[in-house]
Amino acid sequence: MTYCVAIHTDAGLVFLADSRTNAGVDHISTFRKLTVFEREGERVLVLMTSGNLSISQSVVSDLSEGVTETEGLWAARNMFEAARIVGEAVRRVHAREIAALRAHDVDFNISLILGGQIGGERCRLFQIYPAGNFIEASEAASYFQIGESKYGKPILDRVIDRRTPLDGAAKCALTSMDSTLRSNISVGLPLDLLVYEADSLRVTHFSLIRDQNPYFRMLSSTWGERLKQVFSAMPNPVWGDAESALSLSSGTAQPVRVTPAAQPAAGPQPVPTPAAAPPPAASPPAIQRAAGDTPATTPGQPSMPE
Amino acid sequence: MTYCVAIHTDAGLVFLADSRTNAGVDHISTFRKLTVFEREGERVLVLMTSGNLSISQSVVSDLSEGVTETEGLWAARNMFEAARIVGEAVRRVHAREIAALRAHDVDFNISLILGGQIGGERCRLFQIYPAGNFIEASEAASYFQIGESKYGKPILDRVIDRRTPLDGAAKCALTSMDSTLRSNISVGLPLDLLVYEADSLRVTHFSLIRDQNPYFRMLSSTWGERLKQVFSAMPNPVWGDAESALSLSSGTAQPVRVTPAAQPAAGPQPVPTPAAAPPPAASPPAIQRAAGDTPATTPGQPSMPE
Repeated sequence: MTYCVAIHTDAGLVFLADSRTNAGVDHISTFRKLTVFEREGERVLVLMTSGNLSISQSVVSDLSEGVTETEGLWAARNMFEAARIVGEAVRRVHAREIAALRAHDVDFNISLILGGQIGGERCRLFQIYPAGNFIEASEAASYFQIGESKYGKPILDRVIDRRTPLDGAAKCALTSMDSTLRSNISVGLPLDLLVYEADSLRVTHFSLIRDQNPYFRMLSSTWGERLKQVFSAMPNPVWGDAESALSLSSGTAQPVRVTPAAQPAAGPQPVPTPAAAPPPAASPPAIQRAAGDTPATTPGQPSMPE
Repeated sequence: MTYCVAIHTDAGLVFLADSRTNAGVDHISTFRKLTVFEREGERVLVLMTSGNLSISQSVVSDLSEGVTETEGLWAARNMFEAARIVGEAVRRVHAREIAALRAHDVDFNISLILGGQIGGERCRLFQIYPAGNFIEASEAASYFQIGESKYGKPILDRVIDRRTPLDGAAKCALTSMDSTLRSNISVGLPLDLLVYEADSLRVTHFSLIRDQNPYFRMLSSTWGERLKQVFSAMPNPVWGDAESALSLSSGTAQPVRVTPAAQPAAGPQPVPTPAAAPPPAASPPAIQRAAGDTPATTPGQPSMPE
């Protein structure tokens, strides 16, 4: 798998990609998923890919090999046109590969992030889908993730908006990556981090972050420690005292409970082993619901909410 | 979707389930996913379900309706047998439903968590799969999640071990749920929280947590605020000074760069519109890799790592 995140703020763009690829657990290797098209002073385009590695490589090759400076991404007049060119490359690869992939039940699995700036146009950021269609980041949705996106999403949701400074956005992207690295073994170092300052029309900062990188080590250990400190400092719940500001009490609410059905015949019976349990007898069903959330069931006619 | 988490510590068990179900975005409703089988002083079993709601309901019904106290989960002699009984219920529902589901291309989608204690046996916690097979939590893997598990996994990975006190585990489960609620609209309040203290053989604490619950409100706002404070307090990266303890510098490492291929003919050419761009010419390919991570490519023969 992969985890890539790109953040668009007023100050520019931040791109971060891991570099792990795997085909099964015994075939793990490193593939860099961030590619730069830069003509200093004129355009910077950054492309990140996730999905099937052969498809990703085919798309990047389609966009780069033999493409002169008067063609393709080198000639796109604006970022929207650049996103369309990437989408068209995805569609060409799809047309070429899909029949063979289907014959092996392999999905056409690729997602891309494209961001950058061309000439006097503003910075823009796009996410491109396997069908070659795409969406653009906006004021309200100012980051994109591809690959293993869920572990690292909460911190982005809490911290990022358009006013976040570039270094803060880089710090947030790395924090989001740190959570992902810890929780998913299919995402791994080194990391490609690229920071683009709006209107600079050149790569502002780049780092290939390995495990001994001092900042990333500091961030990773500090974040983990502080998180634990903050967690420990939050008060534990209070049970039973409904007036407490820390009360977890929900009054008389009860969990959904099951009670045994009545015995079909009087008197105790030998306990059957479960494997030999008879089919449910015609005794009244036994799901009871407490007051408060769902209506109590009429005995003999339980109903589950939909 | 759903998010349920159960934590097994030396002190007992914590179960937390959301209650949202949806079939498309215009069919959202509340379904409680946590069910208790309790015979005070003798056994407490807690079952949580995620997946297709009709399948979850069928399994819970199979385990409860018409089942007398000498059968099924009421008669299981230990938790392993209880997990096997739940697995058999899953298999019965599968046998009954799978043909019809397949005819509509619907997956047999269900995951369950079963935990509790029977008589003098220790507390145990199991996760049960759609095939009815199951695994048990261990010292090293002391929690299980089902449903939308990824958003809330990092905090569990950082905080939980077997020595975590029960109230701390409840706090952690709620923090994990808070991150999930914020990042995924298919998970929603109210929450069923059940705390089981080892050897008590009855439900120790239960709360049905709605949005006005004072503890959960405190936890949610405090956690969010503190997270932002900790994040802000972490230093920003330093660029350029490789000696700094906060350096993000990676020396001479460069991103993977693409450069334009040589023009097939001498002299400037008119810039074609990308849609009309000619197929890649036979000029040398143009992917360059910097020293440090991947070998630089021989001009004319680029190779991507696998």
